[in-house]
Amino acid sequence: MAPDFRAALVAAADAVDTALERVLPKPGGAHARVHEAMRYAVFAGGKRLRPFLVLQSASLFAVEPEQAVRAAAAIEALHTYSLVHDDLPCMDDDDLRRGRPTTHRAFDEATAVLAGDALLTVAFEILADDATHDQAAVRCRLVRELATAAGSNGMVGGQMIDMLAPDKTFGADDVMNLQRLKTGALFEFCCVAGAILGQAGAEHEARLRDYARDIGLTFQITDDLLDVLGSAEKTGKAVGKDQDQGKATLVSLWGVDAARGKAETLARRAAQTLAPYGPAAAALQALPAFLLDRDS
Amino acid sequence: MAPDFRAALVAAADAVDTALERVLPKPGGAHARVHEAMRYAVFAGGKRLRPFLVLQSASLFAVEPEQAVRAAAAIEALHTYSLVHDDLPCMDDDDLRRGRPTTHRAFDEATAVLAGDALLTVAFEILADDATHDQAAVRCRLVRELATAAGSNGMVGGQMIDMLAPDKTFGADDVMNLQRLKTGALFEFCCVAGAILGQAGAEHEARLRDYARDIGLTFQITDDLLDVLGSAEKTGKAVGKDQDQGKATLVSLWGVDAARGKAETLARRAAQTLAPYGPAAAALQALPAFLLDRDS
Repeated sequence: MAPDFRAALVAAADAVDTALERVLPKPGGAHARVHEAMRYAVFAGGKRLRPFLVLQSASLFAVEPEQAVRAAAAIEALHTYSLVHDDLPCMDDDDLRRGRPTTHRAFDEATAVLAGDALLTVAFEILADDATHDQAAVRCRLVRELATAAGSNGMVGGQMIDMLAPDKTFGADDVMNLQRLKTGALFEFCCVAGAILGQAGAEHEARLRDYARDIGLTFQITDDLLDVLGSAEKTGKAVGKDQDQGKATLVSLWGVDAARGKAETLARRAAQTLAPYGPAAAALQALPAFLLDRDS
Repeated sequence: MAPDFRAALVAAADAVDTALERVLPKPGGAHARVHEAMRYAVFAGGKRLRPFLVLQSASLFAVEPEQAVRAAAAIEALHTYSLVHDDLPCMDDDDLRRGRPTTHRAFDEATAVLAGDALLTVAFEILADDATHDQAAVRCRLVRELATAAGSNGMVGGQMIDMLAPDKTFGADDVMNLQRLKTGALFEFCCVAGAILGQAGAEHEARLRDYARDIGLTFQITDDLLDVLGSAEKTGKAVGKDQDQGKATLVSLWGVDAARGKAETLARRAAQTLAPYGPAAAALQALPAFLLDRDS
C-alpha cells in the first residue's frame, strides 16, 4: 500500500479525533452517563474511513481545513450512532464491536439508545454551529443532504430492509438496493461533502457520487467476504453471522471468486473516475485497493 | 376557556398536520414499514401544543406563515421521536400512548427504534429544506438551537436522568433540573423559534424564554397531577406510574394542593410576561389556564 495513502488515513483520523474531543460534550451533570456512553462509542479506534473521504474530497476544491474537519466530525458522530443502534438487542444483537463490548453491553440498553440519539442530534449541531452568514447556505445544504442520506429513504431505510431480510428471498438487485441505502447513501454524502463545501458545482458532485457508489459497493462486498473468510480476532466482531442467519449477500449469491472479481472491477473504475483531478486525488484513488486488501 | 384559544389550538393542529402529511415520506419501497411506523406515531391525535407555541410566537413577529409552519412540523416530528423512544421496553416500557398501542407494540421494537431515528433525522431535514439564500442563516440557527434543546444536554439528558432516577433520592431541585432538560428545553425552543424566525433580537428572545420556562413547569406539574388524580380513560395512558415506581415528582414532594398552587402562580406569571405584546399574545396568554384545566 502506498505510504502516502496510509499517512492520509492516519492524518484524517487524528484530525477528526481532535475535533470530536472538542465538540462532544464533556461528561457532566446528573446525566453524565449519556456523555460517557457517547464518548465510549466514538473513541473506539475506528478506521475513520468516512472522515478520510470528507477531508480528501474537500482537498480537491480548496476547502478551508476547519470547515472540512467540522463536516468530517459530524459524519463520524452520525456513523457512530448508526453502529450503536444497529448493535442493539432488538436489531443485530451484537456483543462485540471493534473488539470491545458494544455500547449496550458496556452500559445498558436505555443508555445505548439515548447515546445513539444524542450522537445523531449532535451531528446536526456540529454542522450548523459557528456558521458565518456567508457559510450559512452551504451549511444548510449539508444538513439537508446528511439528513436525506441518513433518514428513512437512506441509512435507516436500509437497516429496516436488513431487519426484514431474513424473511425474504433476496436477489442481487435487492441486496444492492439494501447496500445503496444502508451504507451507500452515507458514503455518497462523505464524497460529495467536499464538493458542496467548495461550491464546485454539479459536474464535480456527479463525479464524486460515481466514485462513492463504486467504493460503497466495493466496501460491502469486501465486508461480506470478511464475514465468510475473516477471523473474529482480526475483524473485532462476530463472523459467519450472515451465513448463520441465512442472509443473502453478494458473496452468497455470486460465490467468493466472482464477488471478489466484481469488487476488483469496481475498485479500478472508482480510481479511474477521479483521474481528471490528477495527483491531488491520489489518496482517494488508493482507497479502493485498501478496501480490497483489508483484513478488518 | 376562551373560544379564541380553542380555535387557535385547532388551527395550529390543522396547519401542522397538513404540513406533516406533505413532508413525511410516503410509504414506499422494500422499507415502507418504517414510513408506516413514522406516520402511525405522528398521526395519533396529539394536541399539537408545541406547534401551537411556534405558530403563536411567530405571529408576534410577522413571520411568514409558511416558515413558521415548517418549524412547527419539524418540532412535532422531533417531539414524536422522543415519545416513540421513551415508550420502548428498555425505557418506560409503555403499551399505550394517546389511547392506542405504542409504536413498538403496533409494529415491533426494531421498527420503533428506526421510526424514532428517522423522525429525529427528518426534523432537521425539514428545517434545512427549501431555504433561500436569505433564509439560510436563520435556518442554520434553528438547526443549532433545536439540536441543543434535543441533545445530550437537553431532552436526551433529561431522559437519561429519568432512567436513573428510581435509584436516587431526588429533591425538588433535582426534579426541576430533570424537567428543565427533559421537557423544558424543547418548550423553550418552540417559544423562541418565532423570535428567531422574525429576527426579533435578544430582548424578545429572553422574554419568550421566561414565558416558556413558566409554562414548561406548569405543564410538568399538571402532568404529575394527572398521574395522581387522572383516569387512564381520559389521559390515554397508564396512570399512577410515578407513584408505583416510587419516583419523586413535585406533587409527591410538595403535596397536591401546594403543587397546584405553585402551578397557578407560574401560570399567572407566564401570562403577565407577554403583556407587552398586547392582544396579539392573547392565545399564548390563555395557554397556561388551559394547561391547568386539562384532563388529558
